[in-house]
Amino acid sequence: MLKYDAGQREWTNWLVRETCFDPNHQGKAEAIFSLGNGYMGLRSATDERYVGQIRNWFVAGTFNKFHENEVTELPNVADVTELQILINGETFSLEKGETRHYSRELNLKTGELTRDIVWESPKGGTFQLQFKRFVSLSNLHVVASKVSIKPLDCEADVQIVSGINGQWTNSGAQHFTEGEKRIFDKTYIQMTSTTTESGIDFVTHTVHQWSLDGSRLEPELRQTMGRRKVGIEAKVNVPMGSCLEMEKISSVHTSRDLIYGKRDYSLDFMRNAALSEFKQEASKGYDQLFYESANVWENTWSAYNIEIDSASGYDQLAIRFAIYHLVIMTPAHDNRMGIGAKGLSGEGYKGHSFWDTEIFILPFFIYSNPVVARSLLEYRYQGLEGARRKARENGFEGAMYPWEAGWIEDGEVTPVWGDVDIVTGEQTKIWSGFIEQHITADIAYAVWHYVQSTGDLEFMEQYGYEIIFDTATFWASRLEWDEEADRYHINQVVGPDEYKEHVDNNAFTNHMAHFNMQLAIQYYEKLQQERPDLLQHLENKLNLAAAREQWNKLHQLYLPEPNNLGIIPQDDTYLGKKIIDLTPYKNQTKVASIFSDYNLDQVGEMQISKQADIMMLFFLLENKFEPAVKRANYDYYEPKTLHDSSLSLSTHSILASDFGDRKLAYDLFLRATEIDLGPNMHSSDAGIHSASLAGVWKCVVMGFAGVRMLDGQLHLNPKLPESWNKLKFPLYWHNHRLLITLTPEDVLIEADTEESISLHVLGQKVNVHQRIQIKM
Amino acid sequence: MLKYDAGQREWTNWLVRETCFDPNHQGKAEAIFSLGNGYMGLRSATDERYVGQIRNWFVAGTFNKFHENEVTELPNVADVTELQILINGETFSLEKGETRHYSRELNLKTGELTRDIVWESPKGGTFQLQFKRFVSLSNLHVVASKVSIKPLDCEADVQIVSGINGQWTNSGAQHFTEGEKRIFDKTYIQMTSTTTESGIDFVTHTVHQWSLDGSRLEPELRQTMGRRKVGIEAKVNVPMGSCLEMEKISSVHTSRDLIYGKRDYSLDFMRNAALSEFKQEASKGYDQLFYESANVWENTWSAYNIEIDSASGYDQLAIRFAIYHLVIMTPAHDNRMGIGAKGLSGEGYKGHSFWDTEIFILPFFIYSNPVVARSLLEYRYQGLEGARRKARENGFEGAMYPWEAGWIEDGEVTPVWGDVDIVTGEQTKIWSGFIEQHITADIAYAVWHYVQSTGDLEFMEQYGYEIIFDTATFWASRLEWDEEADRYHINQVVGPDEYKEHVDNNAFTNHMAHFNMQLAIQYYEKLQQERPDLLQHLENKLNLAAAREQWNKLHQLYLPEPNNLGIIPQDDTYLGKKIIDLTPYKNQTKVASIFSDYNLDQVGEMQISKQADIMMLFFLLENKFEPAVKRANYDYYEPKTLHDSSLSLSTHSILASDFGDRKLAYDLFLRATEIDLGPNMHSSDAGIHSASLAGVWKCVVMGFAGVRMLDGQLHLNPKLPESWNKLKFPLYWHNHRLLITLTPEDVLIEADTEESISLHVLGQKVNVHQRIQIKM
Repeated sequence: MLKYDAGQREWTNWLVRETCFDPNHQGKAEAIFSLGNGYMGLRSATDERYVGQIRNWFVAGTFNKFHENEVTELPNVADVTELQILINGETFSLEKGETRHYSRELNLKTGELTRDIVWESPKGGTFQLQFKRFVSLSNLHVVASKVSIKPLDCEADVQIVSGINGQWTNSGAQHFTEGEKRIFDKTYIQMTSTTTESGIDFVTHTVHQWSLDGSRLEPELRQTMGRRKVGIEAKVNVPMGSCLEMEKISSVHTSRDLIYGKRDYSLDFMRNAALSEFKQEASKGYDQLFYESANVWENTWSAYNIEIDSASGYDQLAIRFAIYHLVIMTPAHDNRMGIGAKGLSGEGYKGHSFWDTEIFILPFFIYSNPVVARSLLEYRYQGLEGARRKARENGFEGAMYPWEAGWIEDGEVTPVWGDVDIVTGEQTKIWSGFIEQHITADIAYAVWHYVQSTGDLEFMEQYGYEIIFDTATFWASRLEWDEEADRYHINQVVGPDEYKEHVDNNAFTNHMAHFNMQLAIQYYEKLQQERPDLLQHLENKLNLAAAREQWNKLHQLYLPEPNNLGIIPQDDTYLGKKIIDLTPYKNQTKVASIFSDYNLDQVGEMQISKQADIMMLFFLLENKFEPAVKRANYDYYEPKTLHDSSLSLSTHSILASDFGDRKLAYDLFLRATEIDLGPNMHSSDAGIHSASLAGVWKCVVMGFAGVRMLDGQLHLNPKLPESWNKLKFPLYWHNHRLLITLTPEDVLIEADTEESISLHVLGQKVNVHQRIQIKM
Repeated sequence: MLKYDAGQREWTNWLVRETCFDPNHQGKAEAIFSLGNGYMGLRSATDERYVGQIRNWFVAGTFNKFHENEVTELPNVADVTELQILINGETFSLEKGETRHYSRELNLKTGELTRDIVWESPKGGTFQLQFKRFVSLSNLHVVASKVSIKPLDCEADVQIVSGINGQWTNSGAQHFTEGEKRIFDKTYIQMTSTTTESGIDFVTHTVHQWSLDGSRLEPELRQTMGRRKVGIEAKVNVPMGSCLEMEKISSVHTSRDLIYGKRDYSLDFMRNAALSEFKQEASKGYDQLFYESANVWENTWSAYNIEIDSASGYDQLAIRFAIYHLVIMTPAHDNRMGIGAKGLSGEGYKGHSFWDTEIFILPFFIYSNPVVARSLLEYRYQGLEGARRKARENGFEGAMYPWEAGWIEDGEVTPVWGDVDIVTGEQTKIWSGFIEQHITADIAYAVWHYVQSTGDLEFMEQYGYEIIFDTATFWASRLEWDEEADRYHINQVVGPDEYKEHVDNNAFTNHMAHFNMQLAIQYYEKLQQERPDLLQHLENKLNLAAAREQWNKLHQLYLPEPNNLGIIPQDDTYLGKKIIDLTPYKNQTKVASIFSDYNLDQVGEMQISKQADIMMLFFLLENKFEPAVKRANYDYYEPKTLHDSSLSLSTHSILASDFGDRKLAYDLFLRATEIDLGPNMHSSDAGIHSASLAGVWKCVVMGFAGVRMLDGQLHLNPKLPESWNKLKFPLYWHNHRLLITLTPEDVLIEADTEESISLHVLGQKVNVHQRIQIKM
């Protein structure tokens, strides 16, 4: 059970609380309460172990392949969070005895996870326990935790077993060598291990500090080692009413850390540096480390905070929850790394990056922190070689981006086999890595979106043109001439709607490919005019003259348009397929419930969509389509859409805002926020939904506030939900920070610059000099 | 809590029962109740999952190496035993609700494990559950289980989640590829996977059959697949008082199976054959499969059973328990496989074979089932190439057997790193693989023991001479000339007492090396006389002429003899070391407790022994030493011996029998039986102690009955414990089966042959013609 209004006073709408513990629903809190800093993500499994628990600790970018027949994934680092606690000989477990009080809460403002428990053991003693934990936003390598145990009605022999445990796997796949274990000075515990295929060295440290009623204790520690394990055990007698506290400070460093990416790297050098840094950090203790981290969180919230004054505090909480996760999921420190579809909060999608980043998450950074947006696009630039390799391997030219991307050099890493086919009993083949090709255009689109909104020409010169040109070249080579129709087609693809495989002329794909090539031609011509030197440089690198010729094919590319009923066919065959009543499968607590009754081949033969497809096209290329067309298509496709992808609801909400249905838009926004934060206790088992959380931000800023970049201009078309009295958010535009405050009555825009900034508010062009207030 | 007298009537002294379930003590019952047939071993983890559970399923001989820096081990096969049971939505778990009745028992006679439970769920319904399980001794590939659920005071929606789960690892090391998952006819579940380094294919099957009050049910099955998992879910409504039964029949086949060891092997061929065999077996159902297996168990007990009539039924139970495990641990079906130090009942020692097999376990088979003894020695013959490689790599000649052996071709597989050194905080180095060299002589000794007791000259001609000659050649190359002492020494070894590393002239090692070379000379001379053709053949193969020359060094080998106090120095420095009071460390429930206070270097500097060392020498070369010397050395060394090895107590018991202390011998026998069967709930966590269980048999047959082979003659010197009225056991001697019945008054010997068999009873030579009774 989750409680959303737990925060009082300064914590109002900053706390998410779990009010009872159910071992069958551990995945929920583990994922949505997960901690992190972009360098690492720590799933919030409880300190004590339960069946069904999933203990994950990931370091961004440290991909490894378990076996040559598998794809790379982020490996589970040796765990430092588990504590076995025995009180008077009884193992502490909420499955035993009686739980008199229970609360676990994540403080979004400080990034601290706290658990408060009053537990009566089976033998009858009552104990008050508090667990605290955070991942430092100040020193990216540090995790700290603290447990306090107070016997309320008896004395207690408290025994704690702790250390580093490298036995954890990714659902059975072990990515690390056994490595080396070491205890220094009977105090500092160290484990060094290496990923089996990618050869990344990890060094993990942990240390314990004890106190009784605030006075430092030095209990006798028994040192233990086992297979993939090293640790300590200690026993302390705690008088009734006294409080035992144990702090556990841990760190992780890897040879993939930027500072070790040098030629003179040696494991010993890293290990010594890491130990020395760790000793210094650990000496500060939990409270000081927390203070330092919370300070950075405070600055982060100053930069990102969105204020919502609405009838329900939940709206405010939901946007903070989304931003909290956007911060902790993003490896902003390293442009060789992307954002995983589950962030760093679970094993789902193996830490891989999808179009989710460019189309859903990037807008948040473009408009809130463009430096990070650039880093994410630089990651794609560094992935160009892998994209070119994929193109070659598939018989194409230019750059064909991987559907799933991991380490920059690895190219395509989509797994090939999925879940069981209920009809044949065989595993289904995942086609996305081969034929879900729109991502290549999505990335080109994102580059354009970034540069149009930031004006970062230096990025374009270094990276952007190359991406746009080489992706256009891919599309040109990909088009298939149809003699009969006398035009180019794009056959045999998967569009955004993944319930339709091997379709011809998916409207989204065709339009986006067209956009990609058109963009290349525009930039080519611009460079011809303005920067012939740069064009020459790129010419040499990319064989542009021949490519430019090929791009012209776009003029003969078939672009699906509305039929006589105003409906754009999602692909060549969709509209001719059978329609069934989807009521039983919509609004299910379990996604993909359709597959209990049909297999993918059967679903493919009906007008059933997994997610927004045509709607995505309307959102990305919004001024190519009339509002009436959008509404008609919405009304046609939405009833056929199961929203089985977490990318779907937020897109529909924005479209509803676009055609002015505020009630529907708000309702869809609420449903989008509930994908992770809502009461469904299993939806986040494999990790939070990165793109969906960014979608929550998009609903607010791009939907309700109507922020868009159109033809290089900033637009603001507010349509606040009925129940909202105020929406205030920061917005970056061409290197300047605007602060937008919307009320039902007016629009207030404040800028951080002396320069005049022009934008369009409700279709009217306005110039902002520091501050402007416009009546609605 | 274990109960030893649970069996009534036909089951008297056949049942071991656990009377309450403690999640902190799961390892005990998992290991000592483990099931198997020598082809496979299945640790008896409960069907439902608990924290701390270790689920192991091993197939003998299927070694794999997780990483090049590790050694091979038996990998954990994908689990088929786990069931998640939800009753009216509540997960069945003995940690929740109230357990009204609990009993889990292993039937040693039939090999069936049964668990009977009456459970009141937290919400309040009361349910009677029974779980049964066995590993077939009839079809070595088959495991079967059955669960019955009867709601006693309500109706129940029973949901069962079951299948094959390949997420399990060996303490974090995953040995299998993800492989392929498949469900045939929505019924037969199949998982195919391959070991990562050794490339052994495994195919595992499982199927479920349901009935309600005996009538077949066909509940709707939901098919599920996940990472490394494939299975089904079903929900059945069970009226109050009705009984739902679900049978789960499973099988495993591997490409290492003897019948697939051919050139034309293909995975598809094996998979099809396995599926077809599986369907046929599964169609029989649990009861028929159990009947077939129990029949084979009945024959097995006819062959092996030992009858003990004593004041305590526990003695009878203990020897049956030992024989049960000797049967299930031994891969009698395949001479390419040895016996693991923990059998197939746990991850301890990785399934590797030590001297435990030849010195502790082999005598059981020599005297009870010589065909199996020969198979085990053939395993060592096939390991000769690995032994020669080890000799070469260590700079020696001949065959230097691995301290730990796995797959026949792999040679030495002892791990290099052990537990933490509490002084330095570093991992301790395990020296056994380098310098615990006596195993080479132990194997030669075992060959001699086997052939002297069986007269199997054909074995000698094919395998035995080669082992004895090449091991002697190793020792000749191993001896070190000591100029000062004018004799050969063997320096820098570990003897049986592993608490003394890098010692010079360990008495056991020197005497056994001497024995090994002497044996080679004897056989060489015998062959010169009797089989010059065979000698010529071996000469060509082993370069014997040069070797024969080298063996002569034995005459100058230093053999430690009793000093003026009658004490044989265990090694050159032992007797000069410090003596401390070991009382705090003896009879501990935890072995190796000395290392909480000292590290191995410090223990090495004191007169502290891990286990029998000189005593082993007395046992193996018993007529080289006078009884008075034995007693004096026993009295000297035993107080310094911690019995931290499970090989120690049984050896001491036999020695006590040898020098006539019946009370001491019986007391040590009891302590030896308790290593696994006793009340210490953690002693078997890593698996049962194979050699200790064989040691229990040795205490009885070689100790109390005084069975020995001396100079090729069979000797019987009964010294029954005071409380024993009768001991009856089978005994093979030179291809004939004797049945020996001992009472305090007389010795009865019955033979299965017309031939006269001569042996020595209490030092007097007697000839047995079918039957002889001798008064004591």
